[in-house]
Amino acid sequence: MTNPNPLDNNDGSRFVFAVDLGGTHLRAALVDENGEILFHFKQSTPHTGNQSDIVQAIVAAARSCQLPVDGSGALAVSVVVPGSVNVAEGLVVRAPNVSCLDGVYLAAILERELKVPTILENDANAAAVGELWRGAGRGYHSLICLTLGTGVGGGIIFDEKLWRGADGSAAEIGHMAIDPFLGVPCPCGSRGCLEVYASATGIVRMAGEARTHYPQSNVRQADDLTAQEIYCAGKKGDQLAQEVFRRMGVYLGVGLANLINLLNPEIIVLGGGVVNGLELFEKHMRQEIAKRAFPLPATSVKIVRAECGDDAGLLGAARLAFASPLKEIKRNQK
Amino acid sequence: MTNPNPLDNNDGSRFVFAVDLGGTHLRAALVDENGEILFHFKQSTPHTGNQSDIVQAIVAAARSCQLPVDGSGALAVSVVVPGSVNVAEGLVVRAPNVSCLDGVYLAAILERELKVPTILENDANAAAVGELWRGAGRGYHSLICLTLGTGVGGGIIFDEKLWRGADGSAAEIGHMAIDPFLGVPCPCGSRGCLEVYASATGIVRMAGEARTHYPQSNVRQADDLTAQEIYCAGKKGDQLAQEVFRRMGVYLGVGLANLINLLNPEIIVLGGGVVNGLELFEKHMRQEIAKRAFPLPATSVKIVRAECGDDAGLLGAARLAFASPLKEIKRNQK
Repeated sequence: MTNPNPLDNNDGSRFVFAVDLGGTHLRAALVDENGEILFHFKQSTPHTGNQSDIVQAIVAAARSCQLPVDGSGALAVSVVVPGSVNVAEGLVVRAPNVSCLDGVYLAAILERELKVPTILENDANAAAVGELWRGAGRGYHSLICLTLGTGVGGGIIFDEKLWRGADGSAAEIGHMAIDPFLGVPCPCGSRGCLEVYASATGIVRMAGEARTHYPQSNVRQADDLTAQEIYCAGKKGDQLAQEVFRRMGVYLGVGLANLINLLNPEIIVLGGGVVNGLELFEKHMRQEIAKRAFPLPATSVKIVRAECGDDAGLLGAARLAFASPLKEIKRNQK
Repeated sequence: MTNPNPLDNNDGSRFVFAVDLGGTHLRAALVDENGEILFHFKQSTPHTGNQSDIVQAIVAAARSCQLPVDGSGALAVSVVVPGSVNVAEGLVVRAPNVSCLDGVYLAAILERELKVPTILENDANAAAVGELWRGAGRGYHSLICLTLGTGVGGGIIFDEKLWRGADGSAAEIGHMAIDPFLGVPCPCGSRGCLEVYASATGIVRMAGEARTHYPQSNVRQADDLTAQEIYCAGKKGDQLAQEVFRRMGVYLGVGLANLINLLNPEIIVLGGGVVNGLELFEKHMRQEIAKRAFPLPATSVKIVRAECGDDAGLLGAARLAFASPLKEIKRNQK
């Protein structure tokens, strides 16, 4: 007999309903204990400023992924958000890109709606866990994951355990100061943070700054210029674009050298859209590491591209739920 | 009946013979499970360039501390050295200030001499453990310890466990680049490392650099000028000295803000001789942290002076031995 619903199983396998709530997209999936993804779902994140629209979108996603209305069959719901999270309380502390959730006990709300124990995590932390579980970090014990996207997120794993810090706010790798005195002001209030150089936003800004030195450049002068376009120009030999990625690689290399000297990780995984430009910045990044980091940890660390792509957060969310004792998930709910 | 030798005990208490082999002094002590120090010993570190002179000095220290020649009564010998160490193999990888030990399996040699299982550790790591056990970090779970001395050493503890990194070379906090592009070249090969600003060496150098701007300064112009003298001048109102400590505080503050954003520790402990100048640099250090670190972790982290003084390394060495299963200590020997 065929079994059309994977949750109607008799073989003891378990599933997590994982949700990656990004500033742009809401992704969701049913994930099994082997990291296999069933029922992938994606839509635009509602931006009505109303938290219940986000909650309802997640509930609708659960139905699309065939999560039964009584919650049967799913071990847990695991949601990752782009912001700081109080994991123990299932509370979104602050999420600038979905700010209607600031201060919301999202886990408790979803648990009532979906009838399944629910946990929350920060998205970059979850991506690190996802890469360790099913991506570039398989088989490693200590890993640092940088997500180079609109901003720069980070996740740090020691001895196969996520390091969240004393208040759950560790791994803000994007806000390590790389050029603290003369660098570009950062929205966080500091100056010269890694994020203002190694993010898509930073690449676009640096292209604007460099323009006067490269009057022959083919890079468009437009408000909607993207890092992707700059990368394409650089691949075709555009010198402005290449200079921007060189600078980006140098700043990233300084940041990675700091991480290597501080934490001596086994592997550093680079994810996010900006890593598509790797061939333009890798050489400069590695030169800077060789110049600055101690030889032993600099030689031993692997620095690689992420492998899970857009699924890293979903996979990490699922893995975190599988790794949490169910009673702990339940105990943590308000 | 009195018991003149604490090792002749019948009460089940245990002792570690701890050795802190510094570039300048060799300290040793017998330490019990409560961190009480018996038989404190100190001499100059032999600088003959001959490893056996160091080994014999440690053996003589053991006899001074009444460690019996058959090793009876001591659980372990635990030695900390100022350099990188392969803990599992009891090997000194590289110790610039006692370079005759580079590549020496010191644990195995001492074990043969002293008839007691022996472990090795890096000195700054041990200081962090000592402060967590018996110093400013008592009761905390995650701690970062900076030793501001001739150089800047570091030790990082997560969940009460020393983080040594994949190759045992983590926590090189002195070699996080604070001013990577325009900063002072560092002997490590990088530029603008924290160590070139927040160490005694850095303070003396900065005093020389600032001299032309402060012709009225009372700070001596001499090859043997010390950071201590500069501090004393600053306390008496000398503007050159105060400017040097202001700069030092700013650089240290940038470094601590980075650590707070990256690792969100519960407590940061500042040790080493330079911390005596705290009243001259603390305000500037804290201002920089407030400007740069995220508010939640910056507000919650305690930043305090170390409390174990010169005993931090010895206490940490002892604690590490008490925490290692004896069979593990034995297994690790070559």
